[in-house]
Amino acid sequence: MIKAGIIGGAGYTAGELLRILLRHPEVEIDFVYSTSQPGKPVAGKHQDLLGETDLQFTGQLNKDVDVIFLCLGHNNSRKFLEENEISVNTKIVDLSTDYRMASTDHSFIYGLPEFNKEAIRSANHLANPGCFATAISLAILPLASAKLLKDEVHVNAVTGATGAGTSLSATTHFTWRDNNFSSYKSFEHQHLNEIGQSLTKLQPDFRKDVNFIPNRGNFSRGIHATAYTKFSGDLEEARNIFKNAYKDAAFTFVVEEELHLKQVVNTNKCLLRLQKFGDKLLVTSIIDNLLKGASGQAVQNMNLMFGLEEKTGLQLKANYF
Amino acid sequence: MIKAGIIGGAGYTAGELLRILLRHPEVEIDFVYSTSQPGKPVAGKHQDLLGETDLQFTGQLNKDVDVIFLCLGHNNSRKFLEENEISVNTKIVDLSTDYRMASTDHSFIYGLPEFNKEAIRSANHLANPGCFATAISLAILPLASAKLLKDEVHVNAVTGATGAGTSLSATTHFTWRDNNFSSYKSFEHQHLNEIGQSLTKLQPDFRKDVNFIPNRGNFSRGIHATAYTKFSGDLEEARNIFKNAYKDAAFTFVVEEELHLKQVVNTNKCLLRLQKFGDKLLVTSIIDNLLKGASGQAVQNMNLMFGLEEKTGLQLKANYF
Amino acid sequence: MIKAGIIGGAGYTAGELLRILLRHPEVEIDFVYSTSQPGKPVAGKHQDLLGETDLQFTGQLNKDVDVIFLCLGHNNSRKFLEENEISVNTKIVDLSTDYRMASTDHSFIYGLPEFNKEAIRSANHLANPGCFATAISLAILPLASAKLLKDEVHVNAVTGATGAGTSLSATTHFTWRDNNFSSYKSFEHQHLNEIGQSLTKLQPDFRKDVNFIPNRGNFSRGIHATAYTKFSGDLEEARNIFKNAYKDAAFTFVVEEELHLKQVVNTNKCLLRLQKFGDKLLVTSIIDNLLKGASGQAVQNMNLMFGLEEKTGLQLKANYF
Amino acid sequence: MIKAGIIGGAGYTAGELLRILLRHPEVEIDFVYSTSQPGKPVAGKHQDLLGETDLQFTGQLNKDVDVIFLCLGHNNSRKFLEENEISVNTKIVDLSTDYRMASTDHSFIYGLPEFNKEAIRSANHLANPGCFATAISLAILPLASAKLLKDEVHVNAVTGATGAGTSLSATTHFTWRDNNFSSYKSFEHQHLNEIGQSLTKLQPDFRKDVNFIPNRGNFSRGIHATAYTKFSGDLEEARNIFKNAYKDAAFTFVVEEELHLKQVVNTNKCLLRLQKFGDKLLVTSIIDNLLKGASGQAVQNMNLMFGLEEKTGLQLKANYF
Repeated sequence: MIKAGIIGGAGYTAGELLRILLRHPEVEIDFVYSTSQPGKPVAGKHQDLLGETDLQFTGQLNKDVDVIFLCLGHNNSRKFLEENEISVNTKIVDLSTDYRMASTDHSFIYGLPEFNKEAIRSANHLANPGCFATAISLAILPLASAKLLKDEVHVNAVTGATGAGTSLSATTHFTWRDNNFSSYKSFEHQHLNEIGQSLTKLQPDFRKDVNFIPNRGNFSRGIHATAYTKFSGDLEEARNIFKNAYKDAAFTFVVEEELHLKQVVNTNKCLLRLQKFGDKLLVTSIIDNLLKGASGQAVQNMNLMFGLEEKTGLQLKANYF
Repeated sequence: MIKAGIIGGAGYTAGELLRILLRHPEVEIDFVYSTSQPGKPVAGKHQDLLGETDLQFTGQLNKDVDVIFLCLGHNNSRKFLEENEISVNTKIVDLSTDYRMASTDHSFIYGLPEFNKEAIRSANHLANPGCFATAISLAILPLASAKLLKDEVHVNAVTGATGAGTSLSATTHFTWRDNNFSSYKSFEHQHLNEIGQSLTKLQPDFRKDVNFIPNRGNFSRGIHATAYTKFSGDLEEARNIFKNAYKDAAFTFVVEEELHLKQVVNTNKCLLRLQKFGDKLLVTSIIDNLLKGASGQAVQNMNLMFGLEEKTGLQLKANYF
Repeated sequence: MIKAGIIGGAGYTAGELLRILLRHPEVEIDFVYSTSQPGKPVAGKHQDLLGETDLQFTGQLNKDVDVIFLCLGHNNSRKFLEENEISVNTKIVDLSTDYRMASTDHSFIYGLPEFNKEAIRSANHLANPGCFATAISLAILPLASAKLLKDEVHVNAVTGATGAGTSLSATTHFTWRDNNFSSYKSFEHQHLNEIGQSLTKLQPDFRKDVNFIPNRGNFSRGIHATAYTKFSGDLEEARNIFKNAYKDAAFTFVVEEELHLKQVVNTNKCLLRLQKFGDKLLVTSIIDNLLKGASGQAVQNMNLMFGLEEKTGLQLKANYF
Repeated sequence: MIKAGIIGGAGYTAGELLRILLRHPEVEIDFVYSTSQPGKPVAGKHQDLLGETDLQFTGQLNKDVDVIFLCLGHNNSRKFLEENEISVNTKIVDLSTDYRMASTDHSFIYGLPEFNKEAIRSANHLANPGCFATAISLAILPLASAKLLKDEVHVNAVTGATGAGTSLSATTHFTWRDNNFSSYKSFEHQHLNEIGQSLTKLQPDFRKDVNFIPNRGNFSRGIHATAYTKFSGDLEEARNIFKNAYKDAAFTFVVEEELHLKQVVNTNKCLLRLQKFGDKLLVTSIIDNLLKGASGQAVQNMNLMFGLEEKTGLQLKANYF
């Protein structure tokens, strides 16, 4: 059994990680570290777990674990690792933005399995991709991989309220968000960095803009993204490129049917649909922001890092309704 | 024109009051008092008003107004009136709980127009009823008025998230409340006091329990209440009692159709439906908690206090969808 | 008083029209024509009207009215006018798509008051714009009017479920749409025709694509649209162009604050926000699809056609929450 | 491996059954029978299954299976079994109401495992309880089991839109149900029969009313029920009775925390909370109507009927947000 520790146990990604790992046949949760509520039952915070676990949050780190997951706010992963020495025998999966950009400062591998599986398998330190970055990268990287991105990419995506974190804010108040819609951080979302890094790695000469408008949807989970760009080939050619890119993917599928977000909510899947209009290729991409966009992908990466079958513990029943 | 001041301008009830009074043909808003954001535009807080008003919050009271509305948190109305001297020529409409229970300490009249219209017309100080209290009182007071309450009353009601106020809390976070449902303060909701006061006033010998389970619904506005009790007459008799009780009501109607909450959302109406099952009479009652349950009823009371037609400024278009 | 008839009384747009006209100080509803439910009470279908009106649907046309509103499904307005002779003294406001494209076949004037007010004032037959067309046109026509559209326009918009009409379908079933999101008719939405017609009228040499991805949101009312294109001027210049374009607009406002859809729901307003990123100008536009996008704009047009003040009967209280 | 057939594959309960059985380690789905769409892919109807299964609906029954699940509309199970001869070696789990009431006409065992586990273990034909019946029975049967029901029981429960089935109707249209609330079938819901049967079996002298008001909530999944009745003991005594009643239950837990519906959505759990107010005991009960209230409980029963560990295939990750 893989002994796992979770650092920062109170947020959404930690909660999802707990839900997955408690059912994972090869993992034993060793500790859930929380400075804010040591000694309190985990099921008091993640209340769907009532009746399922007696785990308590702890303020003590056990450094003798096989893997730790960092479920900390952005910038806090780096701080945590500076302040705490982690054994070289402990693998680290970081869910924050802190190590997603490659650098000589650190040894974290970017964990998008569809494009980086071999490196992930041998990684000790893994940077789990951002939620928007995952949905959008899976929609456009096959074109970059085929060196076929020629022009600007136009992306519009909407995320659920869990995308904004557990802290209370005006735009996460129910009376504000219920039956509402808004965009934010247009053209300037922080995930554009990691998307750009992945694009350039695959198609180094690509220099055009990725125009991205993120939106706040009035639902809790999921990301629905559309991305279009000029593409000179026909639809069949595009489909072949994508199907080939994902032929070994465990959770990413190219389908022909019209998509809707709830097909993937509460699963680790990404569904992609391609359409061609005039000279433009439109790709629709849907994921669950907390699973394929965070904790599910983290476990997928952990499975790869420990030589397990990639889907272990991740064959999740969709909520669907 | 009636010159009105609003004390405590940032909350839900103040916002609704502003929306109504800005369109009220006989009222001019003199000031909107807010200690938290003096000098800021009202439309910055109540953002639907962008393009409609240049009003700014003020930290200065103008005591030379015809009416002030107290839109303060509970306990704060009393405190405000202790700390600020209000002219005897200024009428006061208080939306908090502070003066709803009759007392020799104060001269506030309980403002449920359906049962207290004459007293309201001559009131200088008015205590506006609570939202649950309004929905439930309108469902059961006709029976008390006819001295026909004989047994316990069983009430279950659900309110929208605006019922919990603007402050952020775990149960008003979108990710918690979306697609969720829960009950709270069962048998102990504070509005039972004012309901009991109204019942006893109409049927002094009534001594049975009013059992009330309030619920949090995953919608923003409105209260849906069901109340049932033993009733020895038939349905026709019950309907006559209710229709008679509300024959002069401006906004309260007894109907035969099945009800659903959105019929009254964004209006000042109360719709009531009666059904008889065995020896029990079931009354369903729906209101908008912020209008008939707060700011709408406050303006209805103001209209009565100033001798205006009761519906003035309150013929609101339902949102309905 | 203007005597009005409504043709096709059971749908969303007819319902909204009824809600507005019943409160309009200068209009008397003469009849509501419905072949599907003659003799039945209007409030049985539009159930928020219970207690407010005794109007009944009728299967009889009264041709002696001042104005008729056609609230029929697309293609059915033309059919209705072919089968029924309408007096030359009766003005016609058509809410369908049937007469929006100018043609020598008909005399209908396109009713977007912000760009066509004088023609509307003297129109006898008026084609009311589509909902998406209204939101998008108001976002981009000022640039066309200034002859400053130079490149493709990229539009993404989301509409509420009322946009799909009252008929039951898989994508309007609650269990499907609740907490869901999807796009449809990408690049091919029928409203692109009327948008293109308006653009070409203002800037005849404009030949670039308007790329439009419509989305189905999990809310009932409203349209939130973002549109961006290359713009060589700075933000100030853009704002001046827009503010000038809308300086006489009754309901369309250019604001600086971040927008969210519920600011305009249940109102006839359009709010617009401009931002500049690199060489692109982003315009966000929000309307209520049933009001400014349908029945509200129809009444605004009627007001203009009858020489009334443009806002009469349309100063609606937002639902907001 | 248990070979399973599903009769009536297009509805909600069949979809949930498929989601569970496709992941069940001891079950192989032999066929999914649907007269309406033979030959079509199952994932075309239950679209979250895209990428996971190539199963097709079939119009052919394979009678050589170990178990069949009847996911037919009410009254259609009986009709199906009259028209089709099922092998005596095939166990039957019926999800309709048809065989829930014991009768000399049939041999179906009522499948509420918490109160009938031994009979279920040896059953060949099983009638799966109704969703409301499950939530309410689990809330009140421990008292009946202890012969402590003395007075009327007052029940109020709210169900999600999946409770109404997949057919389109006015009250399942998104624009109607969104942000709405209503009650229906008050005092007369059909599940009162099976609840009454269970009560009488445990406490044969109980003759008082169970007053039940069902409500339509604006969410998709789940039932939240409150039930109260007079109870002479104290809270501790009540808790002991309930904890004892459920000490061997696989999915039903008595907890002390305030409950909210999403704790159990997408799981097979029932959470119960007890409170005492004056002489009344209040029990709050939450389940997922499609899982513990239908397909999950059906699989739980199947596990028992085949001697498997009761939780096999049912340790589902909650959706929670």
